[in-house]
Amino acid sequence: MSHGIDPDRIAVLAFDADDTLWRSEDSFHAAEVRFCELLEPHTPAGIDTMAALAATERANLSITGYGVKAFTLSMVEAAVTISEGRVPASVIGELIEISHEMLTEPVQLLPNVPEVLAAVGPHHRLVLITKGDLVHQTRKITTSGLEHHFDHIEVVLEKDPATYRRITTDLGIAPGGLCMVGNSVRSDVLPVLELGGQAIHVPYHLTWELEEVHDHQMAIVEVESLAAVPELVLNEP
Amino acid sequence: MSHGIDPDRIAVLAFDADDTLWRSEDSFHAAEVRFCELLEPHTPAGIDTMAALAATERANLSITGYGVKAFTLSMVEAAVTISEGRVPASVIGELIEISHEMLTEPVQLLPNVPEVLAAVGPHHRLVLITKGDLVHQTRKITTSGLEHHFDHIEVVLEKDPATYRRITTDLGIAPGGLCMVGNSVRSDVLPVLELGGQAIHVPYHLTWELEEVHDHQMAIVEVESLAAVPELVLNEP
Repeated sequence: MSHGIDPDRIAVLAFDADDTLWRSEDSFHAAEVRFCELLEPHTPAGIDTMAALAATERANLSITGYGVKAFTLSMVEAAVTISEGRVPASVIGELIEISHEMLTEPVQLLPNVPEVLAAVGPHHRLVLITKGDLVHQTRKITTSGLEHHFDHIEVVLEKDPATYRRITTDLGIAPGGLCMVGNSVRSDVLPVLELGGQAIHVPYHLTWELEEVHDHQMAIVEVESLAAVPELVLNEP
Repeated sequence: MSHGIDPDRIAVLAFDADDTLWRSEDSFHAAEVRFCELLEPHTPAGIDTMAALAATERANLSITGYGVKAFTLSMVEAAVTISEGRVPASVIGELIEISHEMLTEPVQLLPNVPEVLAAVGPHHRLVLITKGDLVHQTRKITTSGLEHHFDHIEVVLEKDPATYRRITTDLGIAPGGLCMVGNSVRSDVLPVLELGGQAIHVPYHLTWELEEVHDHQMAIVEVESLAAVPELVLNEP
């Protein structure tokens, strides 16, 4: 198996959603840029607005979790803190408006997604495993036009080995039977490999700072695009 | 069956969590009162601050869902709107602080909860079905000391017949085998009865305005306290 994936071991082929099936990080990045523009006139000289926002997000992660609502609460909090209590209500109103736009914007599928799911669906049981906010992820799934490809959908709090183990138990498969496809080495690849499963990394051009990992020692199967996944997971005819 | 519950039909005994197993609405109510106090000096005469907040919540429900983060975003939005853009950043900072307190406050179990779960657990398969924010509900479940009583835990977006049907399918039971115990007629009782299941209403002293129902025609089994549940769901010795 030169490419490192054994199709015969796959009992469930699972896909991440954000930045694997559809764009997500682009909107967060655009919101961060807008946040910095909005705060700039109200920020003392020498403050790195973007870094302060990231620090606020990191500090809040364990209590607010992932997703647009958590991100917005961190933007609002950082706006008050960074401006030393001088940010005007109009800016706060704009931050709320950004969050509503993010929560309601149409799903933008990445290239080849429906074709890839249609190609692998007849051969594998497909599951969607996504992290984040329940209401927003559900809205994206139901409006994506992709829901019918999946046998099961999981919105989880954290993608760690314990979560993947629980999911495989619920699906009635051994952890080694899971093959996960996603853009995050930290969330989609390493915890699945740790359990003895298989994983395919499909990098996205943007990676959220808190998803970055640099110090792992695992050999990772990586492809440039989702379009390369079918030939990895399907046996030769 | 004069009390209206048939123990022999129960394949899964499911419990709601907020205001059924532990206090929840009290904190929201206290936050609303504090919101009104904080906004009062910045609100034009004649504005009903509490009603304006409820209207904002209702308008946002479909895009932000339930829970503390959604509630906080509505508080922040309403603060900007009600004050006609004059609310100071310090008040916004206090609203964020209220949300952090709500998200991290210790779980306050309602009376008799561990005893009731211990009494029914040996006789029925127990499941927790709760609505709200994934990260906050998960934190409450894991810190409640109750998690070990449950065979399965579901955090859902909306408690409607479709959701209950999906859960019973996942649990491998017919909808008629579900018996749900909870404080909300709208979310815990009516949709389960609609599917042919059984339900026990345990009212809480506070009901969120958006959970209220007034126009149903169903006969509902209601008890004053969770302590009355075991004798309803257990067969005579």
